[in-house]
Amino acid sequence: MYLTQGLHRMLQMNPAALATVFRGRRRSYGELAARVARLASGLQGLGMQVGDRVGMLGLNSDHFLEYMLGTWWGGGVLNPVNIRWSVPEIVYSLDDCDTRILLVDDNFLHMAEGIASMAKVRPVLIHAGDGPAPAGMLSLEQLIHDSAPIDDMARGGNDLASIMYTGGTTGRPKGVMQSHLNLWSSAVGRMAEHNITPNTSVLHVAPMFHTACMARVVTQVIVGQPHVFVPTFDALDVLRTIESEKVFDILLVPTMLQAMIAHPDFGKYDISSLKRLTYGASPIAAPVLERALELMPGIEFQQGYGMTETSPVISISGSENHSAAGIANGRVRSAGRPALCVTVRVVDEAGIEVPRGTVGELIARGPNVMLGYWNRPEETAEALRDGWMHTGDGAYMDEDGYLFIVDRLKDMIVTGGENVYSAEVESAVAGHPAVAACAVIGVPSEQWGEAVHAVVVLKPGLEVSSEEVIAHCRQRIAGYKCPKSVDFVNALPISGAGKVLKRELREPYWKDRKHGVN
Amino acid sequence: MYLTQGLHRMLQMNPAALATVFRGRRRSYGELAARVARLASGLQGLGMQVGDRVGMLGLNSDHFLEYMLGTWWGGGVLNPVNIRWSVPEIVYSLDDCDTRILLVDDNFLHMAEGIASMAKVRPVLIHAGDGPAPAGMLSLEQLIHDSAPIDDMARGGNDLASIMYTGGTTGRPKGVMQSHLNLWSSAVGRMAEHNITPNTSVLHVAPMFHTACMARVVTQVIVGQPHVFVPTFDALDVLRTIESEKVFDILLVPTMLQAMIAHPDFGKYDISSLKRLTYGASPIAAPVLERALELMPGIEFQQGYGMTETSPVISISGSENHSAAGIANGRVRSAGRPALCVTVRVVDEAGIEVPRGTVGELIARGPNVMLGYWNRPEETAEALRDGWMHTGDGAYMDEDGYLFIVDRLKDMIVTGGENVYSAEVESAVAGHPAVAACAVIGVPSEQWGEAVHAVVVLKPGLEVSSEEVIAHCRQRIAGYKCPKSVDFVNALPISGAGKVLKRELREPYWKDRKHGVN
Repeated sequence: MYLTQGLHRMLQMNPAALATVFRGRRRSYGELAARVARLASGLQGLGMQVGDRVGMLGLNSDHFLEYMLGTWWGGGVLNPVNIRWSVPEIVYSLDDCDTRILLVDDNFLHMAEGIASMAKVRPVLIHAGDGPAPAGMLSLEQLIHDSAPIDDMARGGNDLASIMYTGGTTGRPKGVMQSHLNLWSSAVGRMAEHNITPNTSVLHVAPMFHTACMARVVTQVIVGQPHVFVPTFDALDVLRTIESEKVFDILLVPTMLQAMIAHPDFGKYDISSLKRLTYGASPIAAPVLERALELMPGIEFQQGYGMTETSPVISISGSENHSAAGIANGRVRSAGRPALCVTVRVVDEAGIEVPRGTVGELIARGPNVMLGYWNRPEETAEALRDGWMHTGDGAYMDEDGYLFIVDRLKDMIVTGGENVYSAEVESAVAGHPAVAACAVIGVPSEQWGEAVHAVVVLKPGLEVSSEEVIAHCRQRIAGYKCPKSVDFVNALPISGAGKVLKRELREPYWKDRKHGVN
Repeated sequence: MYLTQGLHRMLQMNPAALATVFRGRRRSYGELAARVARLASGLQGLGMQVGDRVGMLGLNSDHFLEYMLGTWWGGGVLNPVNIRWSVPEIVYSLDDCDTRILLVDDNFLHMAEGIASMAKVRPVLIHAGDGPAPAGMLSLEQLIHDSAPIDDMARGGNDLASIMYTGGTTGRPKGVMQSHLNLWSSAVGRMAEHNITPNTSVLHVAPMFHTACMARVVTQVIVGQPHVFVPTFDALDVLRTIESEKVFDILLVPTMLQAMIAHPDFGKYDISSLKRLTYGASPIAAPVLERALELMPGIEFQQGYGMTETSPVISISGSENHSAAGIANGRVRSAGRPALCVTVRVVDEAGIEVPRGTVGELIARGPNVMLGYWNRPEETAEALRDGWMHTGDGAYMDEDGYLFIVDRLKDMIVTGGENVYSAEVESAVAGHPAVAACAVIGVPSEQWGEAVHAVVVLKPGLEVSSEEVIAHCRQRIAGYKCPKSVDFVNALPISGAGKVLKRELREPYWKDRKHGVN
């Protein structure tokens, strides 16, 4: 199988069917395929050879999809650039996998010079609009127009489809090698279990460089349904687009949903076409879910849990958990059950499966598991053992196969012989009305081995003492889980992917010791 | 991926769920998995090593499924025996792929001695009932009971899953090598497009050794839903079982459907649970469809077109064609559109795609295409070119991507420069009220190159002349398509798979010539 196959199928069956919608610009599958066949040739003209990595630094748009399909059609490999990263991080990821071509869209021109001065690759500035390109830029329309269409190279199966850079909270980003089979099997397996409704459109609002949105794009290409794009999340833009394009399915992170339903103009838009909302990154908070169900009755919620290394879905929590019953039985906090064709186990350090309800490391195996990390045999061997992806996530499984993620294992604190999951403590600390953000880490303790320590950012103008924070926690979680100490800071160190860099928080405490900083 | 994965998943999520129903015997997925883990060990005890072929000659039952899963679990490869074949044909297929173990169920004891005297493998006679096995037989229950469960060998991906013998109309049967990925991708791709309804049972009534039924079994294993079995087709048995087990989905060939709806007791059974009827082998006749839709309102018909070499589905004709509209626009006669993830082309002899509406050879590519024919590199190279399976079927595609199969290419007759499809002529001849069966072949002709020749079996007690048959055809099809000559015979030569052996019909005419006999 190969990831442009669905494009050929639509070209054969229904070339007039709607393929892409962006800012009112609508193209059919026939038009999309014709553009892709030319763009592939244009990319080859820019130097792309079979297997070469092609990066794109851009916001969501129909052009981003054309970049994906054009690269694959021409035999290349994607390296979509994390738009949240700084120039040095981007340069690292480009150089690490010898990216041959980097396309930069109009939105990121300000970064191009910095990248050009540091990276091995020379950025190609793409002017996506009509009319001639400004000086120093390449007109995408001109490139497509001037390039003769070529046959699909039809790379597929275990051939590399993308190198997605991930991590950064624990060191240098790693390039996750996803094959065509990885992405295809994840998409098709998901569809097999969670019915895709024919002739419905999906709105791509989460960033397309990210594995979650890319997986949704791949799905829509395989089934040949319409893609609708907004460049980046904006609650009003999303509401407007759902109404105007009768969007059926959307992929969000919970904070986007929150912003959407909290928007003062929420009620002014007819979003009754929206029937499914898939979200990832973390379980949804019960009050947000309740409000969303109230405002959007009949909508089906679906949580996908996974990671780039699993292309990406490991488990799915369906609508049965996103209901009054799911809130009551606690399964709204679950990451769901193993996706079709993904085998999941929760194991101890020796790799032995632990009893249900016991926390261990979640490992997963299936056709969706990455080929490995680019040029990192040691990290690959560490992550992939006998085909099992070791997620690093601490989790337990209940009697019915529902998974509950408790923490990153490396963020787990062992204090006085007890395991404390920082995520649980953070949830308790964050419940204090004066707390804007927090992170909980383990710090060295003569008495406890590690002691629970909270780092807190206060809301503007509010104050609270360490004692008050700890007392607040004591009413919510067991005593041994409560912070023994609290630091107040102005901001938490955040990675390009938006995750708290606990490594940096831990460093001053552990710098003279071996354990604890990773 | 590996084909026992769904079994593990059900064991983890819902071991109490119903797995198999046969003659009132009901077993859960937990029980099934436990039996399979022991049977796998039992098969190893009988000599099965990793990669060894294990045959089964048996009727449909829960034990047939256990044989499939037990063989895979223990690292073996299926070689399900065609129950319609004669002993020499069976022996040929067993010996051809060095089948290590052959299980023979109670229904085929009469063939065991013949097989034992000719084949390299020694048949193991399986007593499937309770109580001690008769002399010379092995109790399946005892074998399962006495064998300690083993871990799944978890062979998968491109590992061989089955060798299915096919052909025989054109020479010796060939062993089609299907990998785990072949069977898995066909099943999952089909589900992705044609929604599987959760917690519904399927009735396995077509013979399980056949690729069509096996594919349906594989699907049901992957999703972990109940399998219901009847040993062999019997209209009353099928009606009774649909009612008692609330069967949702059934796979049939059109003649079975005809027999079912024609049964005098049809109306006595509540078969309202049945919502989908999948059929294969040939398009359904419009009158049968109309009657079926009348008797089973709301049922969704689905035709699958394919072959063993494509594991098996190439295209699917859905409910839109099984309707008054489909009858009116002729698409009821279509083989549907390419299945998700299968690429189909209709090509000329040079491999160039022909225009829509033009007949050529149907070729298909995708993850479902077989690894090749066992030990037959030449036939494999002939059938698989650049990954394309050359089906040997003559077909055309309409503007909307619907495929219409016109004939086996080798059964096509070239007469006076015109192509005549024997299937079309046979349909005209068969319409004569005195004709019970017929086959149309090309015979040598000085004048036309080939001349259309019909071989006819008359209905008992009826008579008709050659001239009358030809005149009947003239009213229905173009003159050049009508038979120039007609032979009357008592019976047509039929292969083990139920297909007319046209090779044998052609042989006396062509024996001194090179062309025409294949």
